[in-house]
Amino acid sequence: MPFTDLPLVELERFRPDVREPADFDAFWAKTLSKSRAAGAGRGADLVPAETPITEVVVEDLTFPGFGGEPVKGWVVRPRRRPDDAPLPAVVEFNGYNGGRGIAGERTGWALAGNVHVFMDTRGQGSGWGTGGDTPDPHGGGPAAHGWMTRGIEDPRDHYYRRVYTDAALLVEHVRALPFVDAGRVSVTGGSQGGGIAIAAGALASAAAVLPDVAFLCAWEHGMQVATSDPFTELARYLAVHRDALETVLTTASYLDGVNFARRITAPALFSVALMDDVVPPSTTFAAYNALASEDHEIAVYPFNGHEGGQTRQWLRQVEFLRARGLAV
Amino acid sequence: MPFTDLPLVELERFRPDVREPADFDAFWAKTLSKSRAAGAGRGADLVPAETPITEVVVEDLTFPGFGGEPVKGWVVRPRRRPDDAPLPAVVEFNGYNGGRGIAGERTGWALAGNVHVFMDTRGQGSGWGTGGDTPDPHGGGPAAHGWMTRGIEDPRDHYYRRVYTDAALLVEHVRALPFVDAGRVSVTGGSQGGGIAIAAGALASAAAVLPDVAFLCAWEHGMQVATSDPFTELARYLAVHRDALETVLTTASYLDGVNFARRITAPALFSVALMDDVVPPSTTFAAYNALASEDHEIAVYPFNGHEGGQTRQWLRQVEFLRARGLAV
Amino acid sequence: MPFTDLPLVELERFRPDVREPADFDAFWAKTLSKSRAAGAGRGADLVPAETPITEVVVEDLTFPGFGGEPVKGWVVRPRRRPDDAPLPAVVEFNGYNGGRGIAGERTGWALAGNVHVFMDTRGQGSGWGTGGDTPDPHGGGPAAHGWMTRGIEDPRDHYYRRVYTDAALLVEHVRALPFVDAGRVSVTGGSQGGGIAIAAGALASAAAVLPDVAFLCAWEHGMQVATSDPFTELARYLAVHRDALETVLTTASYLDGVNFARRITAPALFSVALMDDVVPPSTTFAAYNALASEDHEIAVYPFNGHEGGQTRQWLRQVEFLRARGLAV
Amino acid sequence: MPFTDLPLVELERFRPDVREPADFDAFWAKTLSKSRAAGAGRGADLVPAETPITEVVVEDLTFPGFGGEPVKGWVVRPRRRPDDAPLPAVVEFNGYNGGRGIAGERTGWALAGNVHVFMDTRGQGSGWGTGGDTPDPHGGGPAAHGWMTRGIEDPRDHYYRRVYTDAALLVEHVRALPFVDAGRVSVTGGSQGGGIAIAAGALASAAAVLPDVAFLCAWEHGMQVATSDPFTELARYLAVHRDALETVLTTASYLDGVNFARRITAPALFSVALMDDVVPPSTTFAAYNALASEDHEIAVYPFNGHEGGQTRQWLRQVEFLRARGLAV
Amino acid sequence: MPFTDLPLVELERFRPDVREPADFDAFWAKTLSKSRAAGAGRGADLVPAETPITEVVVEDLTFPGFGGEPVKGWVVRPRRRPDDAPLPAVVEFNGYNGGRGIAGERTGWALAGNVHVFMDTRGQGSGWGTGGDTPDPHGGGPAAHGWMTRGIEDPRDHYYRRVYTDAALLVEHVRALPFVDAGRVSVTGGSQGGGIAIAAGALASAAAVLPDVAFLCAWEHGMQVATSDPFTELARYLAVHRDALETVLTTASYLDGVNFARRITAPALFSVALMDDVVPPSTTFAAYNALASEDHEIAVYPFNGHEGGQTRQWLRQVEFLRARGLAV
Amino acid sequence: MPFTDLPLVELERFRPDVREPADFDAFWAKTLSKSRAAGAGRGADLVPAETPITEVVVEDLTFPGFGGEPVKGWVVRPRRRPDDAPLPAVVEFNGYNGGRGIAGERTGWALAGNVHVFMDTRGQGSGWGTGGDTPDPHGGGPAAHGWMTRGIEDPRDHYYRRVYTDAALLVEHVRALPFVDAGRVSVTGGSQGGGIAIAAGALASAAAVLPDVAFLCAWEHGMQVATSDPFTELARYLAVHRDALETVLTTASYLDGVNFARRITAPALFSVALMDDVVPPSTTFAAYNALASEDHEIAVYPFNGHEGGQTRQWLRQVEFLRARGLAV
Repeated sequence: MPFTDLPLVELERFRPDVREPADFDAFWAKTLSKSRAAGAGRGADLVPAETPITEVVVEDLTFPGFGGEPVKGWVVRPRRRPDDAPLPAVVEFNGYNGGRGIAGERTGWALAGNVHVFMDTRGQGSGWGTGGDTPDPHGGGPAAHGWMTRGIEDPRDHYYRRVYTDAALLVEHVRALPFVDAGRVSVTGGSQGGGIAIAAGALASAAAVLPDVAFLCAWEHGMQVATSDPFTELARYLAVHRDALETVLTTASYLDGVNFARRITAPALFSVALMDDVVPPSTTFAAYNALASEDHEIAVYPFNGHEGGQTRQWLRQVEFLRARGLAV
Repeated sequence: MPFTDLPLVELERFRPDVREPADFDAFWAKTLSKSRAAGAGRGADLVPAETPITEVVVEDLTFPGFGGEPVKGWVVRPRRRPDDAPLPAVVEFNGYNGGRGIAGERTGWALAGNVHVFMDTRGQGSGWGTGGDTPDPHGGGPAAHGWMTRGIEDPRDHYYRRVYTDAALLVEHVRALPFVDAGRVSVTGGSQGGGIAIAAGALASAAAVLPDVAFLCAWEHGMQVATSDPFTELARYLAVHRDALETVLTTASYLDGVNFARRITAPALFSVALMDDVVPPSTTFAAYNALASEDHEIAVYPFNGHEGGQTRQWLRQVEFLRARGLAV
Repeated sequence: MPFTDLPLVELERFRPDVREPADFDAFWAKTLSKSRAAGAGRGADLVPAETPITEVVVEDLTFPGFGGEPVKGWVVRPRRRPDDAPLPAVVEFNGYNGGRGIAGERTGWALAGNVHVFMDTRGQGSGWGTGGDTPDPHGGGPAAHGWMTRGIEDPRDHYYRRVYTDAALLVEHVRALPFVDAGRVSVTGGSQGGGIAIAAGALASAAAVLPDVAFLCAWEHGMQVATSDPFTELARYLAVHRDALETVLTTASYLDGVNFARRITAPALFSVALMDDVVPPSTTFAAYNALASEDHEIAVYPFNGHEGGQTRQWLRQVEFLRARGLAV
Repeated sequence: MPFTDLPLVELERFRPDVREPADFDAFWAKTLSKSRAAGAGRGADLVPAETPITEVVVEDLTFPGFGGEPVKGWVVRPRRRPDDAPLPAVVEFNGYNGGRGIAGERTGWALAGNVHVFMDTRGQGSGWGTGGDTPDPHGGGPAAHGWMTRGIEDPRDHYYRRVYTDAALLVEHVRALPFVDAGRVSVTGGSQGGGIAIAAGALASAAAVLPDVAFLCAWEHGMQVATSDPFTELARYLAVHRDALETVLTTASYLDGVNFARRITAPALFSVALMDDVVPPSTTFAAYNALASEDHEIAVYPFNGHEGGQTRQWLRQVEFLRARGLAV
Repeated sequence: MPFTDLPLVELERFRPDVREPADFDAFWAKTLSKSRAAGAGRGADLVPAETPITEVVVEDLTFPGFGGEPVKGWVVRPRRRPDDAPLPAVVEFNGYNGGRGIAGERTGWALAGNVHVFMDTRGQGSGWGTGGDTPDPHGGGPAAHGWMTRGIEDPRDHYYRRVYTDAALLVEHVRALPFVDAGRVSVTGGSQGGGIAIAAGALASAAAVLPDVAFLCAWEHGMQVATSDPFTELARYLAVHRDALETVLTTASYLDGVNFARRITAPALFSVALMDDVVPPSTTFAAYNALASEDHEIAVYPFNGHEGGQTRQWLRQVEFLRARGLAV
Repeated sequence: MPFTDLPLVELERFRPDVREPADFDAFWAKTLSKSRAAGAGRGADLVPAETPITEVVVEDLTFPGFGGEPVKGWVVRPRRRPDDAPLPAVVEFNGYNGGRGIAGERTGWALAGNVHVFMDTRGQGSGWGTGGDTPDPHGGGPAAHGWMTRGIEDPRDHYYRRVYTDAALLVEHVRALPFVDAGRVSVTGGSQGGGIAIAAGALASAAAVLPDVAFLCAWEHGMQVATSDPFTELARYLAVHRDALETVLTTASYLDGVNFARRITAPALFSVALMDDVVPPSTTFAAYNALASEDHEIAVYPFNGHEGGQTRQWLRQVEFLRARGLAV
């Protein structure tokens, strides 16, 4: 596999023209407030998970997300002692069509002493891994396979409006957990999870934003240069709906990670892989280069594909948060 | 491409064990009656289509389908003279993720003197061709990409319950059109369209059933031997949901073309291609071999892939219907 | 699939150096006059086609092409009334290794009220679809598989000299049909058919030229950048015949669509698809940008592959011809 | 992906002819005793690992393996309290060309309350993941790429003789750790790791043997039917060394998992995936069906590829060991 | 790559039903006599080749083949001394779409002391290697790409009728060369060359027949099971010409290697590779098992693909001929 | 296949930054002197090869290479007459994972009147062809499959240090053969063999250097742009060993063909193929453009892949050497 995109020096200054709707903030403010209202009175519900794990606490999470609809997740955290202070938390989102899986599959952040929350992505969780548990009770117009074009005709109907809302509300719910230090809730995730982290980071003003090989940024550019799904789902849709380009770009403008990145001022640690053949590095750099944060870094893995930095990047994330007092 | 399945002599006697639920007929009777009720008072609505075509009549169809929800289609028919008698009709269903397309794309049956009705497949129409226009306003649980596993947890929620219902109701609506001879309404379609034709043929007692390289038959066998989508969507789902096999097979049993074929007594002309690498020929033969019809034929194309017999098969269909007085 | 060629803004001004032989016009004038002489006394022969189609007239065409050799085709046209005036005609050429197929497969232009003539491509018609019926009784030197290098050693022996001649003579024969308005005969076709349309449009001074995703333009450039057949047949030939480049380029110069485009002054509507991985968009633009026509347009389909605009483009063609009085 | 091998009912009784050398036990007894002697006086060395993990203990392991050569690994275990009794241990081996990775990547067994030991595979650890740290200081004759044919000319020189010895000696070293209950040391691993577990389970009489989608069994059969590496490395070698079949089969007979399985009497839990296209299920069944154990089970994942049962299988392993008092 | 066909034990007894026309011998007798007549008075013409080679003699061959048309080749032979006796000769035919190449590329047989003659395959020589020099001045009906379906409508027009005739006449011309011992002229070739050797061996009663991984045998079976060209050219043709099966099988029956093998009584050494994915081993065994020769052997290379035994097989061929006094 | 790299005009001036260690010459001087010492007293050993070849002399070569370790090869040369003068020699190296094969496979140079020496590449010879016979008795740290990363941690341990030393010493040994003219020993080889020829040409001051489609040049650039093995082995290694880039580049700097080319002053004839998808043409040009030779040429094959010019290039090589008095 060779480098899959522009030379690094050009990536570092890549700032494609991404349209931003005038009512972007109003759209999202209204979306969130309506969903908050729909879920009012219900917080994050935690019950002990069924698991053979005993050395950390694993809990089964349900919280009201978009439209107040129940969304699942896992909470993993250190066993507490009577005098424990609230802990920092990291909220993580998953890659495309993965689910929350089986209890106890992701324990790194808790093993390092923090609260870890992993969100199930509604409707997904049947493509790889060990499954998801959250339905997405919304149908819609003709769509290509996958999720990129579900509801593409109107930003209010689009699938990722619901997912981003779930994610932002989850950050709010996590802040309210008794064992969490509300001022130290960060967001992370890889690929689609990175894109959701960017959106949730912006919408919920997360303490830090740590997306890896982030997808869902620079949609228009991505659908022109990507060689594989999910970006190509957009191209496939437009190959059939030959006059829908304007509609697609309008809807995308409410969902594009670049527009969320423009609103992020928190410390941000991105990563990108230069041999990534799923998410073109230029789309991730488009978001990174748009950040409003003064404190930002990007880890570049020149010889990796979409797997990115793996545990090596996680070590860097721990170090990044610890250096800023955002993790123990 | 070599032969992709069993030798022809074994295909001709292939009768896999396909489970049939005790309440199969009740399930469908109830489904249809509820949808008929939901659409009551509304029939097939026809308006002239926008098209440069002048030598035949092309109309834009809307009819109440599953749950009374509006479904689109096209009607193409000969220009009428004052004394014209009602004509035989052929109702056609489309392949996987194709839409009804642009008015006037399919004119063969009308050019041969018959009424042709082409149904839009709800939610589809973004994978190839020129598009679909019918939404599927139903969400659901985690699913693999595609449509095979949407609502797989319960037959009442499954996508194809809605599609088959649309199709059966369309046959009923077509019979009520003033220019159609209600006793001579047949069904056809290729691939997914063939599977829908089998279901609609059984549910609406079509005058004849003419499926080509029919998909959606012998689901359990298909997901074990198929090498490509859509059958492999089921395998992918089960690779994640490792304990869902019983659920999947139960839901499938309400939707399997084999069970519909067992209920077809009308004349039937099938086709199959022995180098088909999308729909395993054995799954089509499983339905063909299960027909209750005394009058049945299958055209075997030994050297074709999933394209099957194309116009050659259409000529045979015309001949088949004409020989039985079911087409002009 | 990503964009497969230069950015659109560069395509729009792409004018590669295409060599043009000094005797180009003399070569073709002599070729045509010799073939006209060989076929003298025989015109287009029409007999009713065997087909179930009744709502339009379908006729089986035979005409003397290159060397007076018989070439097949189909004519489809509206049923006539006693007082009908002659109609405009559209002559269409087929894609690579397709044949004229079965009578009645292409009826759009006739359904819209015009005469449609579809030419069989000699020697082809065994690669896809439902077959061809015209032999090419000429052998030749060592060639790569396919047709691009048959007779590549000398332009007089090249396969496309014969095909272009068939096409240009067919336009002349169509003009002589009693039901055709000789001043309104246009040419069209997709892929190889687009390339043939360009050649025939130039050689026979067609009323309008409407090639889609046209192949056979900018041969030298095409064989350097194309990733799939048929352009790669040239590269494969040169990989073996390592010292034949000059010969190949000389022969190609008599056949290159760019040189024919330079001679077209009629209204022209091209189309191109930016994700086309068969015909590099730059090769089509090379011809489009070389047109001598003042009245020219190109439809760009950014997200389509080699299928191009399909029916969407056909609607645009109808509109284009009607706006110029060249179609009813 | 369809089923990749025989029907399940045939797999369950598949017992290919696997040659067994007369001196198999002597060969291994001598191998182990010489390596024990070479490493005499040195035990497993443990130092705290560099890791952000605090909730369990993570240690960096070095032990003398084949020829007394240092081999690396990780030990992860619950934080101890003063009165803790020794714990059961699970020793795990890795898949093809993976390394031990970064400290703390595999924590499941420790989180469930047991000691977990993960062995670095000598010379490997550069194909995927986060790396290995153990050299294999032995060269050899011409070999295909990969490890299957390194030293294939003589069983004494073969790569897996060294790896199996490392693995068996590691089990012995683990038994000697102060926090381990020597009578409850089991072995596990996936793919290559499953094959090593079978060998080590036999050579070191592990308390239980838990291989997943085990590779390295039924070599002769595997190289005839496998469609991908590593089994095909053997076929590639024999495609060049056309007269070396006897030599290859002789060397393989000392390394074949089937011969080790014949010597296992401990409780055994295997797993296999019927859509595995890397390790043919028949080769794993060949070992499973050869077990001398009275207490054995195999988990069959019909719709999975080489990923097998993942966490679902791990839960079953925990349950299997707990039911037999071999895990807490 | 796994075994690509039946188990060896079944291959050894594989005798598919291959139709044999009643006038097979008459067809070929007439074909040869007419071509002999057309070339009468002209023998093999030899001129020194342009080559830097000095240690053996390399000559440029032209001989009258089918229809007396000139066919090229190379003769390579030891430098002669005054008293040299005539030498045995081996006539070799080339693989699909290879040409005779550049003088001096194949020298093994001459280096071992024999006369080697290498025939150019008419019309081929542009697919790989360094080229061919023999035209095939015969056109024909619609054909799939490649040579298998050229002239498929009638055995008299088929491409391989011309090639087999070239080959048989070449054997006759070689016997007449002054430095050749006419009683010791054998034939060989790989893949297509093996098939031609079988035909020429039968038609010209060669002293021995030595085909490697022979193609062109058991056409009907081959086009059903082959996964790649050239056998699949037949399937592709029949996928379009859906009613031409009988015609194709009739033409094939005059060209099938099985029918020629039935007429070979000379010593024969075949070879076959069990992982061949171009020529199914069963098609080669079909010819081998049909041999009339009492003295026959087949070398089986279990782990090779279409490259077969390469030099290893050549050594066996030398040994085979020397043991029978047919080579020095 | 399209052009795979930069346009030719840019290739001709491509001079990437290739780091050169200060002790490059010292490193190699010391390496060679130590290996010369280790092999002192043993020269090239020649015994008659087992072969049916009689018209030239074929001998089995063994010589002391790196560390004095025995390395195999073949010598092929004209049969001598009493008064023969010593002959020029060409030493050839093989492509990746090929072996010296069977005696007598490469005879061109000897047939043209020169001594030809073909070196076995240690440890290789099991990937294609007919095998190798030279072990590489050196193990090492974790490596990706293949040879590029064996010993990558230190230039002293790297595989190609040993191979280049074998090659340079072989040139020295050949000069000492009684039938060789010591002042006229040239080096050649294709792909990996071309890279070895460049290294040996520099280290042993060969009379001429004739590498084809040379691999092993411009390692850093190559691992960024190559799409297939072996260059991608480096990328795969770095994908796992994410912090090893500096180490890899340091080791590579001692082995890079560009650094050897900078030291070549002899006549040099390179070749390159512009559709090469194995060795990026830019990497070969990087070495060519770095030559210190005044007398240098490069043959460019625009439409060839990695097979390059084949015999056509060999003819050019013969001509090149003869024109300079370096071949007969």
